Amino acid sequence: MAIPWWRRESHSLIWGYAMLEDFKERVWQANRNLVSRGLVFSTWGNASGIDRGASLIVKPSGIDYALMRPDDMVVVDLNGDVVEGTLRPSSDTPAHLELYRAFPGVGGIVHTHSHYATVWAQACRPIPCLGTTHADYCCGDVPVAGPLSEGEVADDYEANTGKVIVRRFEALDPRAFPGVLVAQHGPFAWGETVEDAVESAAVLEEIARLAFHTFILAPGQPVIPDFLLAKHYLRKHGPDAYYGQE
Amino acid sequence: MAIPWWRRESHSLIWGYAMLEDFKERVWQANRNLVSRGLVFSTWGNASGIDRGASLIVKPSGIDYALMRPDDMVVVDLNGDVVEGTLRPSSDTPAHLELYRAFPGVGGIVHTHSHYATVWAQACRPIPCLGTTHADYCCGDVPVAGPLSEGEVADDYEANTGKVIVRRFEALDPRAFPGVLVAQHGPFAWGETVEDAVESAAVLEEIARLAFHTFILAPGQPVIPDFLLAKHYLRKHGPDAYYGQE
Amino acid sequence: MAIPWWRRESHSLIWGYAMLEDFKERVWQANRNLVSRGLVFSTWGNASGIDRGASLIVKPSGIDYALMRPDDMVVVDLNGDVVEGTLRPSSDTPAHLELYRAFPGVGGIVHTHSHYATVWAQACRPIPCLGTTHADYCCGDVPVAGPLSEGEVADDYEANTGKVIVRRFEALDPRAFPGVLVAQHGPFAWGETVEDAVESAAVLEEIARLAFHTFILAPGQPVIPDFLLAKHYLRKHGPDAYYGQE
Amino acid sequence: MAIPWWRRESHSLIWGYAMLEDFKERVWQANRNLVSRGLVFSTWGNASGIDRGASLIVKPSGIDYALMRPDDMVVVDLNGDVVEGTLRPSSDTPAHLELYRAFPGVGGIVHTHSHYATVWAQACRPIPCLGTTHADYCCGDVPVAGPLSEGEVADDYEANTGKVIVRRFEALDPRAFPGVLVAQHGPFAWGETVEDAVESAAVLEEIARLAFHTFILAPGQPVIPDFLLAKHYLRKHGPDAYYGQE
Repeated sequence: MAIPWWRRESHSLIWGYAMLEDFKERVWQANRNLVSRGLVFSTWGNASGIDRGASLIVKPSGIDYALMRPDDMVVVDLNGDVVEGTLRPSSDTPAHLELYRAFPGVGGIVHTHSHYATVWAQACRPIPCLGTTHADYCCGDVPVAGPLSEGEVADDYEANTGKVIVRRFEALDPRAFPGVLVAQHGPFAWGETVEDAVESAAVLEEIARLAFHTFILAPGQPVIPDFLLAKHYLRKHGPDAYYGQE
Repeated sequence: MAIPWWRRESHSLIWGYAMLEDFKERVWQANRNLVSRGLVFSTWGNASGIDRGASLIVKPSGIDYALMRPDDMVVVDLNGDVVEGTLRPSSDTPAHLELYRAFPGVGGIVHTHSHYATVWAQACRPIPCLGTTHADYCCGDVPVAGPLSEGEVADDYEANTGKVIVRRFEALDPRAFPGVLVAQHGPFAWGETVEDAVESAAVLEEIARLAFHTFILAPGQPVIPDFLLAKHYLRKHGPDAYYGQE
Repeated sequence: MAIPWWRRESHSLIWGYAMLEDFKERVWQANRNLVSRGLVFSTWGNASGIDRGASLIVKPSGIDYALMRPDDMVVVDLNGDVVEGTLRPSSDTPAHLELYRAFPGVGGIVHTHSHYATVWAQACRPIPCLGTTHADYCCGDVPVAGPLSEGEVADDYEANTGKVIVRRFEALDPRAFPGVLVAQHGPFAWGETVEDAVESAAVLEEIARLAFHTFILAPGQPVIPDFLLAKHYLRKHGPDAYYGQE
Repeated sequence: MAIPWWRRESHSLIWGYAMLEDFKERVWQANRNLVSRGLVFSTWGNASGIDRGASLIVKPSGIDYALMRPDDMVVVDLNGDVVEGTLRPSSDTPAHLELYRAFPGVGGIVHTHSHYATVWAQACRPIPCLGTTHADYCCGDVPVAGPLSEGEVADDYEANTGKVIVRRFEALDPRAFPGVLVAQHGPFAWGETVEDAVESAAVLEEIARLAFHTFILAPGQPVIPDFLLAKHYLRKHGPDAYYGQE
């Protein structure tokens, strides 16, 4: 993880300002890439990035993606209070905050209603690991968090959405998964950076689509054996990774 | 609802003419957007807009979308008589008129044969509310109107299409739904303006597509609980709405 | 049907030449439109047009669509003999010829392997009329011709493909259908002109796709009642047609 | 098969260099075409070409397709040792090498995770020959190789992937098939040249998609009879081939 800019020796107000502007532009670009990659219909999605120890940058609420400018991005602290920006932060900010607090390795989060990932979420079923494409990115089935109880929906709904995800990962390493499905809702994806999180969201959608059609063709197909799962996951992500992706 | 232009104090013939031209252009643009958003194959669809108390503007019948100009839009009154325009109004105009008469809050109507909405209509099944994407726009299952009886088809078929929709909404608030399915036929969508109606048609198609694949994956999946439906619908549309869409 | 150019009083060699060049360009454009409308993958398809009593213009065999020029079109007579052109006519020409001989009202024919029409053909099932979209273009289920017997495949395979289609329409009016499915093979579509035939091929694909998903959603769904089928078909195609397509 | 350049009489170092550069560009272009034809998501795929008796040219490992240049292609010999190039060859190179060694007629190989071919591979099912589109390219069902045993996965996994394919083709002629499915993984396709291999990969994807939807519509549909399979395959590929593709 990079050292936050204000802790660096060469820190100055001017340089720090430039860094923040650059970070806003990256988060803005990531939000736009959700649209250009077909992961977001209308305005159904958002991407955020965090500069650890410092500021969280989120998409503003209810702004058309096509009209949104880098300067419209909202800077909030880890309590969710706006530090900079004139627009309201995305309503999903409390969910993002819960994940950033609980998952130290995560630097970017994306929430979408991308089609096939949402289909599995609506079906309240984990995405089974039926092939090596899945195993290249995800160390087992993609888990389902929730559904939320009536009480969790009534109060602090968005924060509770984050909390059920964190609870689901109590015994799992979030870095071994591109994301998660929230039951009856849709996917959240993440990565070390906001750009990685967008890539994770795209991968999650494609493995959801592959698993959907495989399940329809062969409903009783078992998941792949552990030795194949481990081989594929570890050749890309393990300590002896040698696979630069084909 | 805006005050119709001819009732405004500043009303003048010139200004009124400019308003009408502007309105024609909006309806024309809405019809073209149906094509660019993939909701209309060939010429299978139309959008109309109404200036309450005044004129209804509809697409002309049998004109290629690519060649259609704003001036080709047809102005009709609430009896369906042509007030302005040299082309014949869309054959579906009587259905639009029935809806405008019965639904005072509606300012724009769109009829398409968009793929997945038409699939549910052909299957004569309401679109079940299986997730929060649906609940964000629609307060429960999307209802099915009809099918029409032999008599309703034989005489005044297009007007009767509107009437079965109105009958289906006797106990429902049309503003709580983006539209409706007509059995064995396809969807009608609406909104406060013609632009909103196009957006409703696009949303209706996407929730139809999500529900289709979810149903195929998990045929016995129950609809989401009422507390989750209400939460999502009301946080966007209720008196205390706070959700600017992600 | 227009009078063939060489029978017109104003006939001259120069004018006749210009007419033929124009007709070649139309057939060439129709073949290219099959690609741009997504009906043809690779080179799997062809369009032909006929000037009744005169020449049939067909796509040359094995030519890349992108490189094909209007002058590459091949002119054949009703015996299939090449009248003009240096390239070999499409291998499917004998099938086209059978249809032109048997169906006097047909002026253009298209053969594709468009996706969902081919799926129904491979399943050897007629496309059931499950909605008004279908009824607007097709007076009942889209019929299946064949499959061909071993003898029909062994000798004159392509001509026999045309013959099984003609046999299937012994008691049907080809003008009441946009085309037909050949079992285990794919669709043939037709129209009054080559441009109409391309439109028919596109419509056939879309109603095949609508019927596919409706069947998957509701396998027991009955076809629409005759009074609705007749109303939709006749309001567009009957003697009192009033429907300019929405 | 063309005579390798260094065996030609006119061979000179300069001319040879130009030939190799040209060949690199072809392999580079083929890799890019995998993306533009929708066969590769992200970086999930690779194409290679061989100059028989000489050099094998492969995609470098882990390079973004959009940034990759012709000079980034890696030249390896039949032992897999790098002959030219500064980047690491694709991790899948050992699988390609096994196929080139066993299949003398093959001059190009493509590995993708194209959607429907991968779905059949994940379902561990051969693609049944349900229509003439399939028969035009493939002399029977597309076979499945593997799955690999635990030992085959543990050591020399990529070379063993090639070996299970070769084993599967012990009694089959690879030239009679566009490619193969590796169980739980995805497709490999091939052809006489690297360009042919890309076309084979595209055909394999489309026949996988056709078979998928046909199977969903009519699960009990039998494969087409041998006489029809033979007719279609042989009219394009047999000694008396006359079919220039429609």
